[in-house]
Amino acid sequence: MKKIILVKLGGSLITKKGEPFTEKPGTIRRLVGEIKNVRGKSNTSLIIGHGGGSYPHVPAIKYKTNEGILNEESFDGIARVQDAAARLNRVVVGEFLKSKVNAVSLNPSSFMISDNGRVEKSFLAPLYMLLEYNMLPVVYGDVCLDTRKGCTILSTEQILSHLAEKLNDKFRIEKIIYCGITDGVYDAEGKRTKKITQSNISLIRERLKGSAGIDVTGGMLHKVQEALSVSGKLGIEVQIINGRKKGNLEKATSGVNVEATRIIG
Amino acid sequence: MKKIILVKLGGSLITKKGEPFTEKPGTIRRLVGEIKNVRGKSNTSLIIGHGGGSYPHVPAIKYKTNEGILNEESFDGIARVQDAAARLNRVVVGEFLKSKVNAVSLNPSSFMISDNGRVEKSFLAPLYMLLEYNMLPVVYGDVCLDTRKGCTILSTEQILSHLAEKLNDKFRIEKIIYCGITDGVYDAEGKRTKKITQSNISLIRERLKGSAGIDVTGGMLHKVQEALSVSGKLGIEVQIINGRKKGNLEKATSGVNVEATRIIG
Repeated sequence: MKKIILVKLGGSLITKKGEPFTEKPGTIRRLVGEIKNVRGKSNTSLIIGHGGGSYPHVPAIKYKTNEGILNEESFDGIARVQDAAARLNRVVVGEFLKSKVNAVSLNPSSFMISDNGRVEKSFLAPLYMLLEYNMLPVVYGDVCLDTRKGCTILSTEQILSHLAEKLNDKFRIEKIIYCGITDGVYDAEGKRTKKITQSNISLIRERLKGSAGIDVTGGMLHKVQEALSVSGKLGIEVQIINGRKKGNLEKATSGVNVEATRIIG
Repeated sequence: MKKIILVKLGGSLITKKGEPFTEKPGTIRRLVGEIKNVRGKSNTSLIIGHGGGSYPHVPAIKYKTNEGILNEESFDGIARVQDAAARLNRVVVGEFLKSKVNAVSLNPSSFMISDNGRVEKSFLAPLYMLLEYNMLPVVYGDVCLDTRKGCTILSTEQILSHLAEKLNDKFRIEKIIYCGITDGVYDAEGKRTKKITQSNISLIRERLKGSAGIDVTGGMLHKVQEALSVSGKLGIEVQIINGRKKGNLEKATSGVNVEATRIIG
């Protein structure tokens, strides 16, 4: 049974905060290099998902796309958020291609439909074939048409959870890695929480509530909840690691321990 | 019942021949303006498909992507053709957004799978919702994963035929317009053939054989055959018009006669 690791590259990691439509090419290139190294020495397949960061941030906030279709302008929002997310995706995939990694985009708004903010239906035949071909599927946080509220924004985390759950019958899902800009989840004293499980989640949730809303899909609290949920369903571990530190992604993906918050649902 | 016209913008019309990755921004902008005018004055919904022209041309030829997976390099081809096609798509959609038209990409390689070069399965829920929202769906000629030969290239014409056939039960498909760089199909004397039907197709086919292969999906012969087939199946007309002539697309889409080859299967 083929093994799969799903990796999220955080939007804040690959784009410049406060600078709309500005990526960090050096960081993207380094992360692509780390992913390429792992692919070269492991027979585990990877699925990459990346956040949108400063690309779709402005239109997503302006049009409140995550809240659904609120008024006539919401349709502008769907188009502009999709375009912004897809533009960053081309940058990321472009870096993979420059490094001779066969990355192929799967555009969530083209193959997913949601119901009240959660993925309801998806078309996964292309993904299965890409995995069979040992190619590198790349998804990303995207706008999604929603049968209940009209439209929504799917976080990369949710998309990866959905894919992991769907692929779980044919593949062995090893783990999910959220590669962001912190060593994991910090507590009130700025100390890293090493492990999040059902036994300490209510504490964590209470504390993280303040940070919700720093990104349109709910910040660290959303990440932790999404991670705990998929971890519990599939019996896998989700790791939140710091992608700013060189080599961290490569290590974590190769099974080497790095500073992280491990989430076990 | 909502009416739909499907419009193909030819790859040769919107990109510069022989100049890889070079679009014609002025032409794209003008065509976007004509489409915007039609949308403003008509209640017919449009679906836009555009060709790839000089964008995916180079990798598609190099890797023979249309022939399937031939060797290890074919996987590079899938990735590079997809990227090239998607890059042009961003340019086209970007022009729509600049003109305040709510265009949304539907990326064929994300929602279609083919069998020996013909679309076998597709995920059309997002398209239905975009039409319901009166937004403008934009598809394009793309690489496609193929259950028989591994991969293929779907021409924009084939994609539009597939969509027209699938939508035909819920919508009234008015016609399909191929907007290219000629006034239609010319005969040996350079005279425009006004109408192609079952009664003169064999003559046309014989003559066009020479021009096949000028683009990776089969040139004018492919267009005519695809048009005749979908026209016959749906009882609609396909028009081949010249998008170089200002106003032609707007007129043809509004039901005004322009110089064209009309194909009635």
